[in-house]
Amino acid sequence: MKQFAVIGLGRFGTSVAETLSRMGYDVLAVDVDAEKVNAVMDIVTHAVQVDALDEHALKSLGIRNFDVVIVAIGEDIQANILVTVMLKEMGVKTVVAKARTELHGRVLAKVGADKVVFPERDMGVRVARALVAANIVDQIELSPDYSLMELIAPREFVGKSIGEAAIRMKYGVTVLAIRRGDEIIISPGARHTVEEGDILVVVGRNDRLRRLEQ
Amino acid sequence: MKQFAVIGLGRFGTSVAETLSRMGYDVLAVDVDAEKVNAVMDIVTHAVQVDALDEHALKSLGIRNFDVVIVAIGEDIQANILVTVMLKEMGVKTVVAKARTELHGRVLAKVGADKVVFPERDMGVRVARALVAANIVDQIELSPDYSLMELIAPREFVGKSIGEAAIRMKYGVTVLAIRRGDEIIISPGARHTVEEGDILVVVGRNDRLRRLEQ
Ligand SMILES: Nc1ncnc2c1ncn2[C@@H]1O[C@H](COP(=O)(O)OP(=O)(O)OP(=O)(O)O)[C@@H](O)[C@H]1O
Ligand SMILES: Nc1ncnc2c1ncn2[C@@H]1O[C@H](COP(=O)(O)OP(=O)(O)OP(=O)(O)O)[C@@H](O)[C@H]1O
Ligand SMILES: [Ca+2]
Ligand SMILES: [Ca+2]
Ligand SMILES: [Ca+2]
Ligand SMILES: [Ca+2]
Repeated sequence: MKQFAVIGLGRFGTSVAETLSRMGYDVLAVDVDAEKVNAVMDIVTHAVQVDALDEHALKSLGIRNFDVVIVAIGEDIQANILVTVMLKEMGVKTVVAKARTELHGRVLAKVGADKVVFPERDMGVRVARALVAANIVDQIELSPDYSLMELIAPREFVGKSIGEAAIRMKYGVTVLAIRRGDEIIISPGARHTVEEGDILVVVGRNDRLRRLEQ
Repeated sequence: MKQFAVIGLGRFGTSVAETLSRMGYDVLAVDVDAEKVNAVMDIVTHAVQVDALDEHALKSLGIRNFDVVIVAIGEDIQANILVTVMLKEMGVKTVVAKARTELHGRVLAKVGADKVVFPERDMGVRVARALVAANIVDQIELSPDYSLMELIAPREFVGKSIGEAAIRMKYGVTVLAIRRGDEIIISPGARHTVEEGDILVVVGRNDRLRRLEQ
């Protein structure tokens, strides 16, 4: 089982640490601020108050033995970069670092970060997409042209079978699954009737999918 | 076409504004800081430097005529809440507000926010999930028990047809689509051979999906 450490317990870092813990993984949580450490103490395996810029302290935590270390230090960009460098020098296999800007992200990649994340930017994109159409629940971009979309069944489909609604022919998209409450219907046939409130999982070209937005 | 306004151009707000603009929507971007306004000027339809706490200035922008206003003010929780209240009082139909903590989120809902978002927390969850398994590209939770997952084809499937790999029987999950470069193969049949580097879109119970993680 992979061992994780999270350095910097802001909202992002805390959420990463909590989620990993809930999934059953061992997590070491580190922050220079004792309050932040206390807040996660009961959630993660170990929580310690350490300044990650203190190389000696970091080493004593045995940080090099962790499989993945997430650097979630935010405003202090210098600390964020220096800690990333130190972790790679100590031999941590996978270092994931949070970046504030594109330039910051490029610096992190250059100094060896294995993965760079931009939480605010990426959530901005997701929230914008969700706002555009009230019936879109979630979506995954499969390629620049194709997406998979989870959406509340458009009004014009309700009460019709998938064959009658001619979803593939008229809209050029394919219904891969239907979620109805707790039930999941996978690859529903043409005779399957769409009910009000059904959540459809569809795949198709982006321009076609936009026609299903309401 | 829906009209959007974004108040507060931090990383999250800027990303929301940019994404909506790129999708072709009209976006009014507002920040009290002239630098933030300048940074988005060439991207959005209108960008203005206004203190959103100034009710009169906000009204002069005709903010009540926008369909959706996103309050992306961050650290100043008081301003974030007051602006949300003012927007609802002015009659804005949909106000989306960014919250820092659960408590803050509950306050926003109580004062009338139609949607509350927690960017850092939610990205923390997503990043944690992506870290656990190196081959998971993205996922959508369809219900507490079922998810849809986009993953790099596990080693044991490569070179086998979907029938041979007996994915549905042995793993209890269904392959809905295969992405191979720019090509998307929807509902691949049993004879379809999985190639190295193929991205599979699969659906199944969460406990079954975990067995595909590598
Ligand atoms: N040298 C350091 N060693 C350990 N922790 C640190 C260090 N520097 C900063 N931190 C911690 O990192 C955490 C996150 O930093 P900060 O609050 O600046 O980021 P942020 O981007 O605002 O976070 P978020 O948006 O996720 O809430 C803070 O709790 C801070 O105490
Ligand atoms: N009263 C106000 N009117 C307009 N804009 C405001 C007001 N108060 C704050 N802002 C702006 O909101 C923006 C976002 O606020 P802040 O930087 O505190 O949030 P943040 O949570 O750190 O943002 P992010 O994490 O998305 O970068 C800032 O650019 C700030 O100038
Ligand atoms: Ca902070
Ligand atoms: Ca800020
Ligand atoms: Ca932030
Ligand atoms: Ca998703």
